[in-house]
Amino acid sequence: MPVTIGALRESAPQETRVSLTPEIAGKLAQAGAKVLAESGLGTRAQFPDATYKNVEWANSPTGLLEQAQVLLTVQPLSVEQITRLKPGTVVIGYMQAYSRKAEVKALKERGITSFAMEFVPRISRAQSMDALSSQAAIAGYKAVLIAADNLSKFLPMLTTAAGTIRPSAVLVIGAGVAGLQAIATARRLGAVVEAYDVRSATKEQVKSLGAKFVDTGVSADGAGGYARELTAEEKAKQQEVLDSRIAAADAVVSTAAVPGRPAPKIISRAAVERMRPGSVIVDIAAEQGGNCELTRAGEIVEHQGVRIIGAVNLPAQLGYNASEMYSRNLFNFLRPAINKSGELEIDWTDEVFAQSCLTHNGEIKHEQTRKSLEA
Amino acid sequence: MPVTIGALRESAPQETRVSLTPEIAGKLAQAGAKVLAESGLGTRAQFPDATYKNVEWANSPTGLLEQAQVLLTVQPLSVEQITRLKPGTVVIGYMQAYSRKAEVKALKERGITSFAMEFVPRISRAQSMDALSSQAAIAGYKAVLIAADNLSKFLPMLTTAAGTIRPSAVLVIGAGVAGLQAIATARRLGAVVEAYDVRSATKEQVKSLGAKFVDTGVSADGAGGYARELTAEEKAKQQEVLDSRIAAADAVVSTAAVPGRPAPKIISRAAVERMRPGSVIVDIAAEQGGNCELTRAGEIVEHQGVRIIGAVNLPAQLGYNASEMYSRNLFNFLRPAINKSGELEIDWTDEVFAQSCLTHNGEIKHEQTRKSLEA
Repeated sequence: MPVTIGALRESAPQETRVSLTPEIAGKLAQAGAKVLAESGLGTRAQFPDATYKNVEWANSPTGLLEQAQVLLTVQPLSVEQITRLKPGTVVIGYMQAYSRKAEVKALKERGITSFAMEFVPRISRAQSMDALSSQAAIAGYKAVLIAADNLSKFLPMLTTAAGTIRPSAVLVIGAGVAGLQAIATARRLGAVVEAYDVRSATKEQVKSLGAKFVDTGVSADGAGGYARELTAEEKAKQQEVLDSRIAAADAVVSTAAVPGRPAPKIISRAAVERMRPGSVIVDIAAEQGGNCELTRAGEIVEHQGVRIIGAVNLPAQLGYNASEMYSRNLFNFLRPAINKSGELEIDWTDEVFAQSCLTHNGEIKHEQTRKSLEA
Repeated sequence: MPVTIGALRESAPQETRVSLTPEIAGKLAQAGAKVLAESGLGTRAQFPDATYKNVEWANSPTGLLEQAQVLLTVQPLSVEQITRLKPGTVVIGYMQAYSRKAEVKALKERGITSFAMEFVPRISRAQSMDALSSQAAIAGYKAVLIAADNLSKFLPMLTTAAGTIRPSAVLVIGAGVAGLQAIATARRLGAVVEAYDVRSATKEQVKSLGAKFVDTGVSADGAGGYARELTAEEKAKQQEVLDSRIAAADAVVSTAAVPGRPAPKIISRAAVERMRPGSVIVDIAAEQGGNCELTRAGEIVEHQGVRIIGAVNLPAQLGYNASEMYSRNLFNFLRPAINKSGELEIDWTDEVFAQSCLTHNGEIKHEQTRKSLEA
């Protein structure tokens, strides 16, 4: 029997994204699946119900939870929602396994097969499923727009009859996907851009985007494309050089993250105090505690004339495009598990499924999560 | 005796700009003038007092008004401030003569020599004094940032492992200084840009910035680089073509203005209702009544999923650069009136002074203003 794939409206207040776009609903139907959707699911992402073809509208969210064989989500389901699912239901989405302990426990106990988009391995075959990357690109773009919007200066140089306006200086900290997109966007807007990453391998990428690489003489290349955490000594040396670049910047966009850990503190209070009044810091790492000592997630802190923006869930501020990309990521993940008859058939020997599996058959399959929950 | 040039903190709540920057304070001192400033005058524009050299700090705003021989302003002085001035004082700044009738009357009755930056003739020699242009460029840039920040879509095209995100479509209405800067900024950010102006002569400028010109078959080239007002018939024809381009746009930036008159209504309610939900209109002409029927100055109106932003005093949102340019405009205007001994000496045969003079010796010198006040 063809698999029934369900998608709900997201209930988190700031979440505008939707797990299923009209494009992907069509593709799933084409693959032979039956798609069950909650009315209004795409409204906040600017996909009105009328733009969805080939979907069946569920009578109620509860009914949808009870009928779906596969459920696509953005934010983690609540414990209450999880208990509505049939045992054996497959849930695919963000799981936030390190912080949502009650939800992980509920998934396990209810016998749900859950896949965490955060755990999709960063191998080349899985790039098209990499939601962390697709959403990070959006965050990087948006962070620069926020910086530009909060500056009392132009980003580009402006030459007028009344003389020249100098371009703004933007410093991007962390040259992962978000950082690289921030660099590209700031360059597009004509800013003079510097970038820094503890992984010296990013130097060439930074340069190829037209930015200058800040060389502190410290490298921290780590596993999985992420940075390892630095020692206190390395941090001090890094800080010395960085502080002077921070002081010279009109805007700092900070994006440094270590998965499953608090974000490294890179911008000290002292560094902020050396910045010119009117300068701006957009801290994308705010939800992980922030790269700046003064960051407060979801708030704007003014400190001696410097505005520190604790950016939270930036992709949700570009709900339309973020949903397009996220929904494609989900589709690319799920598609190999739909067989020619439109039935669900997961190949557990596939490392993508195996490594991103959080719970299955009443067990926590993801080792790090299991350890962290037992601790 | 050297002229005493004064500059005050602006008192309007949303006004961050300052008439005198540290750069221009230095240049005026160099020209032999004495500069008298109110403490904190540049704070909101990110010029702390410490960045001003060569100025004397006034004991009080009242004292400054009484001592200044020339007063530089951004927003018009209040009637109360005007009555503090010595008769014969020269005031240079925005005068908003069409709407500030009580203030114009006070300037006249107090015997103030006032020059309106709005009335500086648009001749090539006076380009460096053209505050309307310098501030319009800032408004055009900022309007696009606001549009980008309010869209749930990327402006640029984005190519990722999960497929391509299409660039946004931006329509700019009015290809004056603000419109051209809006086009340039939207293009920088990678949007697909169309632009429209009733003056067909702008076509080449629009194209040279990489935008497509919307040809409605109606031309309204007017005097002084502005558009003339269209007839009802012309408007209908224009509207027909424009409406379809508005419907296709993700963001519309409208900048059409006729000096001393209400802004032309170009975007009808019906046109807004043809736009996709999530689309944005940034109406720079909001203060003159708006180019869009639904615009409310200083407010954000949501209409059937379309956000209409009634943008007010956008240059004040980029206070630092806007002040730099405005202060240079004032300096370029005033400089020829400071003689070798640093004294004030206005050449009334100079058309720049003659045409931009609002009041002098107890008379309203600007003919249009006089007529409008008598009417």
